Amino acid sequence: MLALRKTARGPGAELVEVPVPDPGPGEVLIRVDAASICGTDLHIYRWDRWAEGRIRTIPMTFGHEIAGTVVAAGPEAHHLQPGTLVAAEGHLYCGFCRLCRTGRMHICENLRILGVDVDGGFAEYLAWPERTCWEVDPRIPPDVASIHDPFGNAVHTVFAEGDARDVATATVAVLGCGPIGLFAIGIARASGASAVVGVEPNEFRRDLAKRMGADLVVDPTREDAVAVVLDATGGHGAEVVLEMSGVPAVIDQGTRMLARGGRMSLLGLPSEPVTLDVTDQIIFKEARLFGVTGREIFRTWQQTTTLLASGMVDVSPVLTHRFPLAGFEEAFEVTASGRSGKVIMFPHPTAP
Amino acid sequence: MLALRKTARGPGAELVEVPVPDPGPGEVLIRVDAASICGTDLHIYRWDRWAEGRIRTIPMTFGHEIAGTVVAAGPEAHHLQPGTLVAAEGHLYCGFCRLCRTGRMHICENLRILGVDVDGGFAEYLAWPERTCWEVDPRIPPDVASIHDPFGNAVHTVFAEGDARDVATATVAVLGCGPIGLFAIGIARASGASAVVGVEPNEFRRDLAKRMGADLVVDPTREDAVAVVLDATGGHGAEVVLEMSGVPAVIDQGTRMLARGGRMSLLGLPSEPVTLDVTDQIIFKEARLFGVTGREIFRTWQQTTTLLASGMVDVSPVLTHRFPLAGFEEAFEVTASGRSGKVIMFPHPTAP
Amino acid sequence: MLALRKTARGPGAELVEVPVPDPGPGEVLIRVDAASICGTDLHIYRWDRWAEGRIRTIPMTFGHEIAGTVVAAGPEAHHLQPGTLVAAEGHLYCGFCRLCRTGRMHICENLRILGVDVDGGFAEYLAWPERTCWEVDPRIPPDVASIHDPFGNAVHTVFAEGDARDVATATVAVLGCGPIGLFAIGIARASGASAVVGVEPNEFRRDLAKRMGADLVVDPTREDAVAVVLDATGGHGAEVVLEMSGVPAVIDQGTRMLARGGRMSLLGLPSEPVTLDVTDQIIFKEARLFGVTGREIFRTWQQTTTLLASGMVDVSPVLTHRFPLAGFEEAFEVTASGRSGKVIMFPHPTAP
Amino acid sequence: MLALRKTARGPGAELVEVPVPDPGPGEVLIRVDAASICGTDLHIYRWDRWAEGRIRTIPMTFGHEIAGTVVAAGPEAHHLQPGTLVAAEGHLYCGFCRLCRTGRMHICENLRILGVDVDGGFAEYLAWPERTCWEVDPRIPPDVASIHDPFGNAVHTVFAEGDARDVATATVAVLGCGPIGLFAIGIARASGASAVVGVEPNEFRRDLAKRMGADLVVDPTREDAVAVVLDATGGHGAEVVLEMSGVPAVIDQGTRMLARGGRMSLLGLPSEPVTLDVTDQIIFKEARLFGVTGREIFRTWQQTTTLLASGMVDVSPVLTHRFPLAGFEEAFEVTASGRSGKVIMFPHPTAP
Repeated sequence: MLALRKTARGPGAELVEVPVPDPGPGEVLIRVDAASICGTDLHIYRWDRWAEGRIRTIPMTFGHEIAGTVVAAGPEAHHLQPGTLVAAEGHLYCGFCRLCRTGRMHICENLRILGVDVDGGFAEYLAWPERTCWEVDPRIPPDVASIHDPFGNAVHTVFAEGDARDVATATVAVLGCGPIGLFAIGIARASGASAVVGVEPNEFRRDLAKRMGADLVVDPTREDAVAVVLDATGGHGAEVVLEMSGVPAVIDQGTRMLARGGRMSLLGLPSEPVTLDVTDQIIFKEARLFGVTGREIFRTWQQTTTLLASGMVDVSPVLTHRFPLAGFEEAFEVTASGRSGKVIMFPHPTAP
Repeated sequence: MLALRKTARGPGAELVEVPVPDPGPGEVLIRVDAASICGTDLHIYRWDRWAEGRIRTIPMTFGHEIAGTVVAAGPEAHHLQPGTLVAAEGHLYCGFCRLCRTGRMHICENLRILGVDVDGGFAEYLAWPERTCWEVDPRIPPDVASIHDPFGNAVHTVFAEGDARDVATATVAVLGCGPIGLFAIGIARASGASAVVGVEPNEFRRDLAKRMGADLVVDPTREDAVAVVLDATGGHGAEVVLEMSGVPAVIDQGTRMLARGGRMSLLGLPSEPVTLDVTDQIIFKEARLFGVTGREIFRTWQQTTTLLASGMVDVSPVLTHRFPLAGFEEAFEVTASGRSGKVIMFPHPTAP
Repeated sequence: MLALRKTARGPGAELVEVPVPDPGPGEVLIRVDAASICGTDLHIYRWDRWAEGRIRTIPMTFGHEIAGTVVAAGPEAHHLQPGTLVAAEGHLYCGFCRLCRTGRMHICENLRILGVDVDGGFAEYLAWPERTCWEVDPRIPPDVASIHDPFGNAVHTVFAEGDARDVATATVAVLGCGPIGLFAIGIARASGASAVVGVEPNEFRRDLAKRMGADLVVDPTREDAVAVVLDATGGHGAEVVLEMSGVPAVIDQGTRMLARGGRMSLLGLPSEPVTLDVTDQIIFKEARLFGVTGREIFRTWQQTTTLLASGMVDVSPVLTHRFPLAGFEEAFEVTASGRSGKVIMFPHPTAP
Repeated sequence: MLALRKTARGPGAELVEVPVPDPGPGEVLIRVDAASICGTDLHIYRWDRWAEGRIRTIPMTFGHEIAGTVVAAGPEAHHLQPGTLVAAEGHLYCGFCRLCRTGRMHICENLRILGVDVDGGFAEYLAWPERTCWEVDPRIPPDVASIHDPFGNAVHTVFAEGDARDVATATVAVLGCGPIGLFAIGIARASGASAVVGVEPNEFRRDLAKRMGADLVVDPTREDAVAVVLDATGGHGAEVVLEMSGVPAVIDQGTRMLARGGRMSLLGLPSEPVTLDVTDQIIFKEARLFGVTGREIFRTWQQTTTLLASGMVDVSPVLTHRFPLAGFEEAFEVTASGRSGKVIMFPHPTAP
């Protein structure tokens, strides 16, 4: 089969012929119908400092936002029937550590990540444990199915502690309107936010933010985002801030636009330490800061299914580009350009 | 001034001339611009068994869903300026009991109720403590302002424990679509419910339920509401049930249509004991049942303001009838008829 | 091997020779070192109406409070090593339903129960899925290990919604001081309850309640438990009520002794419908009623381990009787007598 | 009367004769029976950079940890009777802002602080609004009564979001064992922490930490506190970290010793920005960071009363020194020395 692989510790990737994987115990073989490109994939493709430090095994197939059809089952895999459309939870948890045992498999002490620690899904086929497969609701088409992973990131970021407790009637600021930020705008909107502000330097994405339901979008290269949010909230600040940029200065700004008693969730990964005014912006405000990793397995997936399948959030504006796997160079180029939302590839030639 | 008073312990009420009240310490004098009729008022008007047992002082002006304009301040009332439009929180709390001291003034151990325990607001003027007045957001017109109280009941019922934690992505069943149930439909809709089912025997109100956003309405006189809800939810049941009817058999049905792990909030007041299948419908389901009283002071009011002022919930379909105070007989008749949503009276002749 | 089995649909049980079970896929073979007797086992032994209606397969080995040593692994069981001491979670969940997928396996829509739906553990050996085995902390001795199940019931009842949020500084009433109620007294005490009241008609158990840390014990055959609790709390009522009796009248009393804004958890299973004063005792109090089933898998187990292994709760007063499996008749007799706490049997002759 | 006042913008303070204050509207006159010294008072006494920037009015009486006896009432003060022992909530809230209206008066947008923004209580008498007075439980003696404020800080820090949800069965690390840290150790112990670790460079205070119930105390000048906590928790880290030091490097260490999924509350006020490893220590851990200000009004006070009056926490080891007001120089000296817990002064000569 064809697989998009890192074959050297440097920029780029190669589409090469490799054997179809043999599903091991508890695994199923999935024909990969759709695979979307994550920011992480772009890091790996470009081979930046993060990738150099994080990726251990080369050659390796990458890609982890995967949906596809079960075509075979390995030994000890009893549940999923051939023909079932599934999306992959890419966080492979141990199931036995203290975190797994208390229902927090997504922050397992022994996590391995699809397409980062083990061969990924930018390939015609993927062998993956059935316990980390999610059966896709029939109302969700296969191409949309590949975004369960990043949409789930957004759900998990919006729904602090697993639910929507502080979103309904709140003002919500989304810092960084890449695909996950754009999904978060739609989710906050659907969950009763009274106003949603998107902050994003890229004009293309600001337009998408509006289409996803943002009441106000801010270009931080031209306006002071903190001032705009304070102004738009009568000086109170946003009750919920969702940080998707990973830029240290933006994280600091997030605390400054946060209302007293507000909540800020941090999903974007800063590559440098972050300096914060803890006294005035966290302690005196009684701010709550939540780190966010992955998605709750499978509570977030259930919520994601409901939001996508019911039509509560229409993600179609975000799904801007589609390519066959052979078009990967253009796909990565458009992803890197910023003139895109989510870019989807179709690894298997028979995919719908 | 004119006031609508119970002048005898029996059915009916009289519009009589009484002195304008003198605001006492901490009170303001409010010109009553709008006063809506609650089910409780109908009980008092008709003088049923509940009213006979509950109302202690006659003669008494009744009415507690009140909005109006501050026209004067008594001694020790320093905050509200003349001309301010306010809505009355009708739960007069002591401020010093264990519940008040822990932020739960709405279930104060020494509650007194406007228009039930003390003279109410179906009158041209009302003297009421400024600490139980809410300044109406300027985006909310005076007639709508009188529904802060029942809309707040609905908010408090939908938002168990004060927030929307389990509503987003949930299926919600509303049992009884009087005005509060109708508001609850709109609020659940705005807060991310994935589907809302209204159960109501009255056709007029079922139509309003649809207009407020119910996906499905059930006539329990023709269909088995439990079966319909189970069927509509793939057999799982509704994750949130909001009981607005106060009918013992309907409360029992509520537990039967509730999903495993679901939550049922009880606002409707049954006049008889209620018999429940605790083992199968509560314990084995790990159901949570919440009693609901009034509104949180003033957390619910803040949420109510946001929902009404932002346009997230459009209550106009529910506000079906408007009368001058002199038209009270027709107002109560139409309230009793069931062919109405919320009925509003305008006690002061200069009211907008 | 020897197994204690129901061999007929009537009272009693027989100790019979049966083949050692063959562990199936994903199962391990456990040498049963200790097995404690639950109230459910007594129902099955006596063959009351509940047992007649609930038990489908006869003959069947019963018993579900089991601890033992892994001696062999079936196919597809890869994790547990021979020699590991485990306790059995007796709720066999499907893993794929909506509840399992959202972390609530203990209320799985397709639950099967050890010793009720499938052969249980009053036997020298038990074959049981490794995914429902809990590795016992080495600080917990094997005989105590068999009480993970009922102690976990108590933890889950005390810790509403999985944590101790409303117990610290609260007054707690425990209605029914059988073994689970006695454990609950110790857990509430260790979790910061300011006062714990035990209500129990049996004198032997009232004495145990005191030894487990109850500040006050009430004999409801001689005193009005509601009056005593109200009196002991300055008229406010208990902020947390834990219902362990399953007696309808006691459940009603629980609501009457509950403080405004309080929480009542229901674990005892009433065999009849329960009639409650919903208006005054639930709605006007804003009471929260929680049904409680089993234990959270495995959050409760983690908490149970901490409480038992750290010595925070000393259960030794409750473990009143120990018998070899051959002494089952006396074991059930003393269980039925009420002059006992938890009764433990040692099914395998080599058990410690 | 005598009052301890800052009379110049520099180090020190003067005991001077001033008129007894006249209670204004809503205020009572309190005879100050006990007044304990807070770290903030030491900042003001020494006149450090913080004091120079924060204190606006000189001359000013300082001191805010106050208990005393009501001796007179101003106009509009109707509730507190002469002879009542009260403790002062020093956060004077407006009552009308968005935060006050939603039950979060302690983070009011218009807060003024006793002894910082307005004349404080290191004086024979204090005039203070009765709405910010707490009636002391009769089981609490007057000298202990003055610590309601700092003990309440500790309660509010331990009980994130107002309750003990994540403390029971958790390992808790307390960073900085001044009086509030010492109280926190006792509160965590009483609320079901499975183990409590105190980190404190001062030997005198480490000894107090042990007496308050710490299982382990660490001298960070000799040991790596992060390593010790990780080691003591089997590598998992502490599930709850309570930061009381305000030292930026210690805050960073707090995130490093925090378990995955853990919670860190921040009470100590850093005077410099704080640099954190957000990616690895907050996001990948799904850490929750909570800023903590003051105490919830009056939920924390109710909890404080229960903990102190019931004897659940014995604070006597922490109350190390007592002085008449005239001994203020020695009182501040011993406070500054670090060889003290809480230092209490007795401003009025007739105080017990």
